[in-house]
Amino acid sequence: MQASTDHELDPRLRGDTLFLADLPLSRLVLMNDRRWPWLILVPRRAGLVELFDLAAEDRAQLDREAVGAAAALKRSTGAEKINVGALGNVVRQFHLHVVARSEGDPNWPGPVWGFGTRVPYDPSEAEALGARLLESLS
Amino acid sequence: MQASTDHELDPRLRGDTLFLADLPLSRLVLMNDRRWPWLILVPRRAGLVELFDLAAEDRAQLDREAVGAAAALKRSTGAEKINVGALGNVVRQFHLHVVARSEGDPNWPGPVWGFGTRVPYDPSEAEALGARLLESLS
Repeated sequence: MQASTDHELDPRLRGDTLFLADLPLSRLVLMNDRRWPWLILVPRRAGLVELFDLAAEDRAQLDREAVGAAAALKRSTGAEKINVGALGNVVRQFHLHVVARSEGDPNWPGPVWGFGTRVPYDPSEAEALGARLLESLS
Repeated sequence: MQASTDHELDPRLRGDTLFLADLPLSRLVLMNDRRWPWLILVPRRAGLVELFDLAAEDRAQLDREAVGAAAALKRSTGAEKINVGALGNVVRQFHLHVVARSEGDPNWPGPVWGFGTRVPYDPSEAEALGARLLESLS
């Protein structure tokens, strides 16, 4: 699986993630952190920071993409709870996290953000998970 | 300001928050934690856990209410960044957090969830903030 290479993706987001797909509105990437199955949706629009910066029709599309990502994560991982969040305190480019959580995971029931250090996937492992998620998405 | 008293609100949510308003879909409450201006939207529907449990028209309404809450928080607090999240690892009843964040706040740039101990408002302080937020919402 290739690293995300879109010039419009924030460099930190690009460095921490692996490209999965371009959905109608968002680039869908996989956080390269094997501690949690963790998707991020990044709308391909310039200059978005807050939820209210998105046009209403883009928010409706983002909602569809978020629901699809959340349901795919739930189906393909059997996670106990999906966590959804748009924080942006570090990376200001608007992006929406969709994360599969389960009892006993590294920071359960606390949040994933800002916890410990990212643990990258082995390439074959990321490939397999990415394929499973994309299949579940479609 | 009264504590939230809706019988359908999870007891933990009810105990941690103060009632602000019933919007078309959601009960809007203020987290009783003076460390951050922090709103929570709780759709008044039984049995919701995940984002994808909401009907499409409820998600559209929740989106409008979330954008309104986020913009009101931004306007009335001058916060640097609004954080939005639906976690539900502890309280399963679906609820959406909308939190005003600023550099130097108690856990900036980390998340608010699971951090330290809630610091309740003085009643008059909560009253004033609640009134300011409701005015900014309308």
